[in-house]
Amino acid sequence: MTGSMAEGRVASFTWPDGLTARFHAIWLRDNDPAARDPGNGQKRHTYGDLPADPRVVAVDGGRVTFDDGHVATFDTDWLRAHRYDVPHAAERGWLPPHAVLWDATHAPLSLPFATVAADPGSLRTWLAAVRSHGVARLSGVSDIAAVVALFGFVRETNYGRVFDVRARPDPANLADTPLALAAHTDNAYRDPVPTLQLLLCRTNDVAGGQSRVVDGFAAARALDRAAFDLLADHPARWSYAGSAGVRLSARRPMIELGPDGELRAVRHNDRATAPLDAPFELVPACYAAARAFAAAIENPAMGATFRLEPGELFIVDNTRVLHARTAFTGGGDRWLQGCYADRDGLLSTLAALEDAA
Amino acid sequence: MTGSMAEGRVASFTWPDGLTARFHAIWLRDNDPAARDPGNGQKRHTYGDLPADPRVVAVDGGRVTFDDGHVATFDTDWLRAHRYDVPHAAERGWLPPHAVLWDATHAPLSLPFATVAADPGSLRTWLAAVRSHGVARLSGVSDIAAVVALFGFVRETNYGRVFDVRARPDPANLADTPLALAAHTDNAYRDPVPTLQLLLCRTNDVAGGQSRVVDGFAAARALDRAAFDLLADHPARWSYAGSAGVRLSARRPMIELGPDGELRAVRHNDRATAPLDAPFELVPACYAAARAFAAAIENPAMGATFRLEPGELFIVDNTRVLHARTAFTGGGDRWLQGCYADRDGLLSTLAALEDAA
Repeated sequence: MTGSMAEGRVASFTWPDGLTARFHAIWLRDNDPAARDPGNGQKRHTYGDLPADPRVVAVDGGRVTFDDGHVATFDTDWLRAHRYDVPHAAERGWLPPHAVLWDATHAPLSLPFATVAADPGSLRTWLAAVRSHGVARLSGVSDIAAVVALFGFVRETNYGRVFDVRARPDPANLADTPLALAAHTDNAYRDPVPTLQLLLCRTNDVAGGQSRVVDGFAAARALDRAAFDLLADHPARWSYAGSAGVRLSARRPMIELGPDGELRAVRHNDRATAPLDAPFELVPACYAAARAFAAAIENPAMGATFRLEPGELFIVDNTRVLHARTAFTGGGDRWLQGCYADRDGLLSTLAALEDAA
Repeated sequence: MTGSMAEGRVASFTWPDGLTARFHAIWLRDNDPAARDPGNGQKRHTYGDLPADPRVVAVDGGRVTFDDGHVATFDTDWLRAHRYDVPHAAERGWLPPHAVLWDATHAPLSLPFATVAADPGSLRTWLAAVRSHGVARLSGVSDIAAVVALFGFVRETNYGRVFDVRARPDPANLADTPLALAAHTDNAYRDPVPTLQLLLCRTNDVAGGQSRVVDGFAAARALDRAAFDLLADHPARWSYAGSAGVRLSARRPMIELGPDGELRAVRHNDRATAPLDAPFELVPACYAAARAFAAAIENPAMGATFRLEPGELFIVDNTRVLHARTAFTGGGDRWLQGCYADRDGLLSTLAALEDAA
């Protein structure tokens, strides 16, 4: 690798294959590997500790000398992996790394619980499916919390650590009736929303009651640009008043973008929407956009359908994948157990398994 | 109250004091109170169930008749409270409802644990302080989890349900040393970030080790417009590699806005920043903005300082308020217990207490 400098505020590196990238002196000084704890990667200096306007006076391979005599030595592969002298994605709604869009033809990965619990490679494959597709299945599950323990921690809420979804005589929630549930993300009225949801079938003796999952990122990207922008640019409002002491509410858009346009999350639940709060002139167009989003989600070509049998579980990334169930009938019982968890633990466990592989 | 219609797509309501507001027919139809479950407020129709272009043909007080004969009857006070024919805040970084900015002169509300545990009015006051100022204190605490149980649920992470912050011989985290910790939000490398943090003092025999809290919303708003926009418009990157199996990372801005410019959250932790990922040309300006933000946070006029004695606890809204500690020395011990929780439960409990008051 060779390097060169322009005025000392920018240093340019060229790798053996001809790739060139510029780095700012301030960035190089901030990212000096010697300033990080070798164990946990924490940085030992603050922004205030950095010189305000450092200059690079010499580059020799990965060795960078600054105008105050400080020397930082970089792994040139690391520098290459972290170069930022690249075009930045411009299209609003660009997909996060690893995300793969899918439709009704997708069969979510299903593995036996015993396999992922015993074999780190299988666990890695299963967690990677959640990261890439936002949904995966398991069979042979007897304890939903044991599934969460494979990768992270239960997010306890007012519904409990583990909750039942079952037809009840006096339901507090439409989920606890035999009615169909349109595809939705859970707890849109909660902020922060639980980012993972697991549903385990304990009993399924009814006719109907199929499960359906929909890639909300694919549905959002199926919208025309105007509808996409309306749902991204204006918060929706969500609320839920459950049992005594529960008055949840949130004000978040149906399509959530990062500041640089990255598609971060979708929220959709017809039942939990509070009155819309958009500028007066845009309200009819926002309704039309919400209807278009709902239609994209309900499009049979979008959703993957399966029937959960006892001991079978699915997990969804609740910031991306919507789930639904068809109405059910008959004298039998349909009893699911649900549980929330969070993506941070899952992605951390996956990254550690990938590091170790 | 009187009402009038224009083409049937908009109905105008005037209250006895002369206030007038327009509502769209589609909004009125969607928010028909009869379409909501009286218990939990869930809506019984989907967007697809709504007529695409309903018209209002008559308004009589809160009674609205549509062109297909449907009648919806509104509480006119509810309509007034939910009117949206109003100017929308235009300035980027407008404050969420209830937020009150503060500086070094603020003395966070401190109440005895026994009082808030026994008296719903005191609990309401204490929770309202967390909502308005993002920080409050308690004394006489023996069990940190019992504090969380007053309003919500522990967010368990890889650090455990309750974790210790204590100087250690071989610390995995800089928090576990006697070094000063610059003001920071916790777990910026976690997504979703824990939205509340509690710290309980068990032992504090050292010299130094004062606690300092800073209103991150005030610090963000102290920035000039260009710096504010740079930190809001470009994600920062955060990472933490802890004990085996932990590889956390996040890509979120230091200043997080809603799509309509509402100030939603700040993140700041010098130690956990991963290499910045902004467009090449903007990197030096982003560094300058990050330095300005750090300087605003470290400004002695901004932060409130206090010393925690055994049994004393503080809670911070970890999406807004930064916390710091000064270095400590001496042969004594400084042992804090920490715990994360989430804002959804706290705000829900507070709303229910306010409803009941």
